[in-house]
Amino acid sequence: YGKNTIKFLRLHKEGKKQFVKEVEVCAHLRLTSPQEYLEGNNSLVIPTDTIKNIVLVLAKKNGISSLEQFAIDICNHFMTTFCQVAYVKAYVQEVPWQRLHEDGVPHIHSFICVPDGIRFCEAEQCRNGPLIVFAGIKDLKLMKTTQSGFEGFYKNEHTTLPERHDRILCGEFFCKWSYGECKDFDFNCIWKKIRECILEAFAGPPDCGEYSPSYQKTVNCIQMLVLSRVPQVQVIEVVLNNTFYNVVDMKNLGLTNDKEVLVPVETPYGSCTCTLGRKTFFEA
Amino acid sequence: YGKNTIKFLRLHKEGKKQFVKEVEVCAHLRLTSPQEYLEGNNSLVIPTDTIKNIVLVLAKKNGISSLEQFAIDICNHFMTTFCQVAYVKAYVQEVPWQRLHEDGVPHIHSFICVPDGIRFCEAEQCRNGPLIVFAGIKDLKLMKTTQSGFEGFYKNEHTTLPERHDRILCGEFFCKWSYGECKDFDFNCIWKKIRECILEAFAGPPDCGEYSPSYQKTVNCIQMLVLSRVPQVQVIEVVLNNTFYNVVDMKNLGLTNDKEVLVPVETPYGSCTCTLGRKTFFEA
Amino acid sequence: YGKNTIKFLRLHKEGKKQFVKEVEVCAHLRLTSPQEYLEGNNSLVIPTDTIKNIVLVLAKKNGISSLEQFAIDICNHFMTTFCQVAYVKAYVQEVPWQRLHEDGVPHIHSFICVPDGIRFCEAEQCRNGPLIVFAGIKDLKLMKTTQSGFEGFYKNEHTTLPERHDRILCGEFFCKWSYGECKDFDFNCIWKKIRECILEAFAGPPDCGEYSPSYQKTVNCIQMLVLSRVPQVQVIEVVLNNTFYNVVDMKNLGLTNDKEVLVPVETPYGSCTCTLGRKTFFEA
Amino acid sequence: YGKNTIKFLRLHKEGKKQFVKEVEVCAHLRLTSPQEYLEGNNSLVIPTDTIKNIVLVLAKKNGISSLEQFAIDICNHFMTTFCQVAYVKAYVQEVPWQRLHEDGVPHIHSFICVPDGIRFCEAEQCRNGPLIVFAGIKDLKLMKTTQSGFEGFYKNEHTTLPERHDRILCGEFFCKWSYGECKDFDFNCIWKKIRECILEAFAGPPDCGEYSPSYQKTVNCIQMLVLSRVPQVQVIEVVLNNTFYNVVDMKNLGLTNDKEVLVPVETPYGSCTCTLGRKTFFEA
Repeated sequence: YGKNTIKFLRLHKEGKKQFVKEVEVCAHLRLTSPQEYLEGNNSLVIPTDTIKNIVLVLAKKNGISSLEQFAIDICNHFMTTFCQVAYVKAYVQEVPWQRLHEDGVPHIHSFICVPDGIRFCEAEQCRNGPLIVFAGIKDLKLMKTTQSGFEGFYKNEHTTLPERHDRILCGEFFCKWSYGECKDFDFNCIWKKIRECILEAFAGPPDCGEYSPSYQKTVNCIQMLVLSRVPQVQVIEVVLNNTFYNVVDMKNLGLTNDKEVLVPVETPYGSCTCTLGRKTFFEA
Repeated sequence: YGKNTIKFLRLHKEGKKQFVKEVEVCAHLRLTSPQEYLEGNNSLVIPTDTIKNIVLVLAKKNGISSLEQFAIDICNHFMTTFCQVAYVKAYVQEVPWQRLHEDGVPHIHSFICVPDGIRFCEAEQCRNGPLIVFAGIKDLKLMKTTQSGFEGFYKNEHTTLPERHDRILCGEFFCKWSYGECKDFDFNCIWKKIRECILEAFAGPPDCGEYSPSYQKTVNCIQMLVLSRVPQVQVIEVVLNNTFYNVVDMKNLGLTNDKEVLVPVETPYGSCTCTLGRKTFFEA
Repeated sequence: YGKNTIKFLRLHKEGKKQFVKEVEVCAHLRLTSPQEYLEGNNSLVIPTDTIKNIVLVLAKKNGISSLEQFAIDICNHFMTTFCQVAYVKAYVQEVPWQRLHEDGVPHIHSFICVPDGIRFCEAEQCRNGPLIVFAGIKDLKLMKTTQSGFEGFYKNEHTTLPERHDRILCGEFFCKWSYGECKDFDFNCIWKKIRECILEAFAGPPDCGEYSPSYQKTVNCIQMLVLSRVPQVQVIEVVLNNTFYNVVDMKNLGLTNDKEVLVPVETPYGSCTCTLGRKTFFEA
Repeated sequence: YGKNTIKFLRLHKEGKKQFVKEVEVCAHLRLTSPQEYLEGNNSLVIPTDTIKNIVLVLAKKNGISSLEQFAIDICNHFMTTFCQVAYVKAYVQEVPWQRLHEDGVPHIHSFICVPDGIRFCEAEQCRNGPLIVFAGIKDLKLMKTTQSGFEGFYKNEHTTLPERHDRILCGEFFCKWSYGECKDFDFNCIWKKIRECILEAFAGPPDCGEYSPSYQKTVNCIQMLVLSRVPQVQVIEVVLNNTFYNVVDMKNLGLTNDKEVLVPVETPYGSCTCTLGRKTFFEA
């Protein structure tokens, strides 16, 4: 079992207008025989350097119309070219370059990096098995300053947490979903739609929001909305790494702090994870 | 000489609409006597814990109308309250929370973190000296995919770099400027204007861009534009940490790569720095 | 499914001599019912804050005789105290404080952080299932400057890597093994013995070393030596994240570089992973 | 003003025994004219790529007998070769590879990375000025579990910190010193001696330690000991980034915690800095 990581830039032009994708590709291979581990026989080993060359050649020849299509291309290439490959996985992640605008006018060749959630995907295949495609967003940081609480939890002699009905809900999201049978999906369009679902389910209606009784319920709301709005999604996993904030007690300093000044609690920090599919739910 | 760092959230409401600032404050103090170092006499030392309390109390009482005003408030407090303080510097940096929008409608209490350039400022004062205010932007990553070259440089027997008239210009910018006499500046408005100048000078006109003969010249263009457009700026320093990209040579792989696939060169990486003022220039 | 991370220091004294363990504990819990996700019903949820309290109380009461025993204590506590817990995993990692010595004399209360491989362990249990204990070392960086090559690998039209019989072997190791039925093991002693096996298998005899035909074979040698020397180990997984170094071509600079100056190749980097058990091998 | 960073490995053999230095070199240059910034005239610019070549050639030709000598070599080369260079600084930092030992026997070609304090140095020179050499250690983490307090500090209405006479003293040290006129110093030997002084002054006698009334006093003790024991040192700067630990209050949990369990306080964290010379002290 081996993997390796390659970073590169893919440029293309339409007329004078320039387009850019900067990606990080990680290819995992497992061979049909472990002879290189057991016997030091390298005759079936595909060197990291060769894998790099193949990924760059595919990028040159096919371009990167979507991360997902590029990951599919990589899987197909390894499966059809190397009979010693038993399993291949291609992970592709994008550097979030966005076109610059001046007074609303898009610039033909200048870009700014805007990391407000990183897009990634994975394609994987076992020999004689189906090709499965996942996509996702990570490092997405969101905050609600109200409409969040945590009450009615289990209590015993080790409980010191007070119940709260107006706390900050803040954290970093990792969301990953699988597509079913991949017909000619418009992966770019679907990804944007799912991102909007995540933001909408997190925030609730813009004029009033929606009360969250726990991190867990917010995770579930996101999953339910994505599954209801996007039929191509089969299963969706959401991990939420919480950041807790405490209202600073200013009594000793002669002041009343009405949820105006809060400090982050760096330890403990927690996370909650849930995976939700179409017919049966299961927690991972 | 001591410093410390405090992170916190400052919330406020206007009607039902919520506003949030998350900041990291670093306060540096130097005392008039080094007796705590030499004699272990702590009687003049202001503990880190007290500094934290003061910063939080100022945030509670004054709010954070702008990073710069908050830094000024901190300096003023330490200078007027503690006669043993010889020098104070307050550095304030913002977590880039932006209000979420759904279909163009701003959300009343939900935010997303968008780190496309981090805003910071510094205020510093020596006892009996003027209060000086700096502001800046850091971690701003920009790329031009064309209209950049590097030719006519100094050559000798150690030179292996070829001349290039169509390379990628990419890097991370750190820009820091000082304001002169601080009358009632609208710091938020000026900061936005300077950010726009930086982007415009980097990119050039949206329909055609502007040729950059070197990283150094691009740094200078940014400085010149800011100084010409924003009279409140006295001196501006720009540091550009370059990322180099090499066109992959695909001859061995039987392909012609017409600047379509490039790989980042991780080492050596370089940076160039220039500080430009109003009447005399000087390099730092 | 939820987890959280707690960092703390555990001190104890024997006479005037002080001992310290600084650990990071990550507890994962899965409950028998997902009602907090689906219904927002928190009545079975054990808050992060309570988990933190329990871990700190166990550290206070039991001390940390070994990381493994502490992880076992945590699992036992959650399984016996909370009937709503379906699964528990405790990960414990150590900050590598070592006692300072002056001229060979150990200091009674001063320590230095020496991160030459981080010790960690995991204990996990499903309700009604056995308690399984893993231990490991991570962030262990090793280098052999000779006695390493890579030849006879698979070649096709995308191959550009030359064969090499004298390259640098360098990388970061992650090793994790499971213990079988945990009788009264001396976990501290076994861990030290396994660390020595890893170093010995990597390096070979001190006077001449041992030739490595590939990263994969070196991984296998480590696994074979650990399994043969340490009967308590059932299965061992090794991940090696390679760092490649290229000999700098100095022909253009008029010099012959006889493997004296090398530069790291930052991308692509690779890793290889193998899991080896007692009777059947399987790659993961 | 420009700088760049180069990482490489320098190997050499004595008989069959192999030696390795892995270093990161950062060269800073300032030219006599800023014409490349103002006019886009590159004719005096020495490209990053050329600087890299020079550093690698010097490493190949001279080897790296000590970091300091290598930094001096770089300065000398740039000053004597390029008349357009007005100022040069070479920073050199070492990756802490240590030879592996098996049962006390040193291995001829295997190494382990042991980052318990990173060695670095700097040499700098202005045209027509003296060459100045600095050396230092950074990322050195030390802890005393007792014999440390903080009492008698300044108090006012914002003070909430209690006085403590038995706290943890823990932090990360950065120490940098300058050598006077550099005659034929044995830089490797002096560096080791200074490292020992730092540890000894921090810890005190091994059987009982020495009470520290503040972080500041400990910083001063280190400086005093280095200056008194090592005549080659002219000025020494020490920065201590503190980590604070709080004893966990377990009253609510029905337990008495006699400084047995402590948690790190991540914010605020502080640092103290002092620079001490031979005749006059001054704080920076």
